[in-house]
Amino acid sequence: MHSRTVKLTIEYDGTDFAGWQVQPGQRTVQGELERAFTDLAGEDTRVTGAGRTDAGVHALGQVAHVTVALDLPCERLAGAVNARLERDSRVLLVEDVPEDFHARFDATSRSYVYLIGATESPLWRRNRWFVSAELDLPAMRTALAVLEGEQDFSSFCLAGSEPDHHRCRVTSISLESQFDLGGMHTLRITANRFLRGMVRSIVGTAVEVGRGKVSPGEFEEILNARDRGAAGPTAPPHGLYLRAVRYD
Amino acid sequence: MHSRTVKLTIEYDGTDFAGWQVQPGQRTVQGELERAFTDLAGEDTRVTGAGRTDAGVHALGQVAHVTVALDLPCERLAGAVNARLERDSRVLLVEDVPEDFHARFDATSRSYVYLIGATESPLWRRNRWFVSAELDLPAMRTALAVLEGEQDFSSFCLAGSEPDHHRCRVTSISLESQFDLGGMHTLRITANRFLRGMVRSIVGTAVEVGRGKVSPGEFEEILNARDRGAAGPTAPPHGLYLRAVRYD
Repeated sequence: MHSRTVKLTIEYDGTDFAGWQVQPGQRTVQGELERAFTDLAGEDTRVTGAGRTDAGVHALGQVAHVTVALDLPCERLAGAVNARLERDSRVLLVEDVPEDFHARFDATSRSYVYLIGATESPLWRRNRWFVSAELDLPAMRTALAVLEGEQDFSSFCLAGSEPDHHRCRVTSISLESQFDLGGMHTLRITANRFLRGMVRSIVGTAVEVGRGKVSPGEFEEILNARDRGAAGPTAPPHGLYLRAVRYD
Repeated sequence: MHSRTVKLTIEYDGTDFAGWQVQPGQRTVQGELERAFTDLAGEDTRVTGAGRTDAGVHALGQVAHVTVALDLPCERLAGAVNARLERDSRVLLVEDVPEDFHARFDATSRSYVYLIGATESPLWRRNRWFVSAELDLPAMRTALAVLEGEQDFSSFCLAGSEPDHHRCRVTSISLESQFDLGGMHTLRITANRFLRGMVRSIVGTAVEVGRGKVSPGEFEEILNARDRGAAGPTAPPHGLYLRAVRYD
């Protein structure tokens, strides 16, 4: 049996995971997937993700690749893996890809969604950040618009990570509101790459703008400061979703 | 201190409740609310709901009334009650109403929403019914349309309940699909009253139409049979939401 490389598209509820990446003694999405593939293949199998998500962060379309000696058709392979996972993670799609496909290095863009709730909704309590203040959405939009294009995002990078550089190219960013179901604000952002904690740091600082504590001009100064200490508080993980990863 | 009657609008995640109605030894929404009001008022307090929801059924806008000797402004009263509830139920709104307001008898219509998922989504696993088959939505819509107007719904009434009569006036029913996020079908129904298990029985039978096991003509025959044994299987509770209760 030949090995093949497959691309996985994965959804998970981050609530009960210590994030994506394998960590000893912790329940992680990568760990659960590797356990499922190792069990199926009968040999140690590594799964490589497009990016790490922190503890509590959800995914609607995380992508990973795995090289494995299993000749099941893609759909049956997805079923066999899912049968070995608990219900809080699911492989949505398995696709055959060239042997040299790399989920992380080949990705050209990632999209995240962050949900902010205007009411403390029981049904959404694990899935959006409840902010009790009324937010000045036009001010937030003005502030967020300065992030478009290629920028140094040092100010919005979580301390403790040491990337090679802090430049990211934000290709779209938007903030929409719906006033059904108690009110919800949806922030969407797409970029070629993201730094650790970047979306949560942007959201936390944008909410300070929405509360009137930081002006749009000060938000731009925070970006330009290129200083990890300049940003506002980091928004909690449970409002954040890795929406999609794209490849050329 | 005078007693006053207030109307409550309540949201809850039904997952961990044995339904709305107080039952000895069970955790119920009515029971949690009565405990909170009794604690606040310092005397036994009863809460009366617009309707019962079964174990596992959610509510976006359940309504109840309570007569209580507490002179807090409405918003502070909501806050004080919510401080005594766990996070899976919340009073969204407290409003002063005439002393003779009755949440159940004065209600003129109720709306329910039922969510059917086309994928076994981890993020929606507690909140919609996953149906793996591809559904024939036009056939389902044709079938459901026969329910509009005043009808005898005996065929869609759960065994064990004994209402005075089985006539209900359905003022609107619709089935919409969205193909974002893995696909979801939303059934909305409004009527002056509902029988026990009626929405879940309608949804379960409509899905049989969607699977091609029951034709729209047979669906109409089931309605006309006025026989509890005629309907298809009952859809599970976790896809069902009491959306709103209306008063004139």
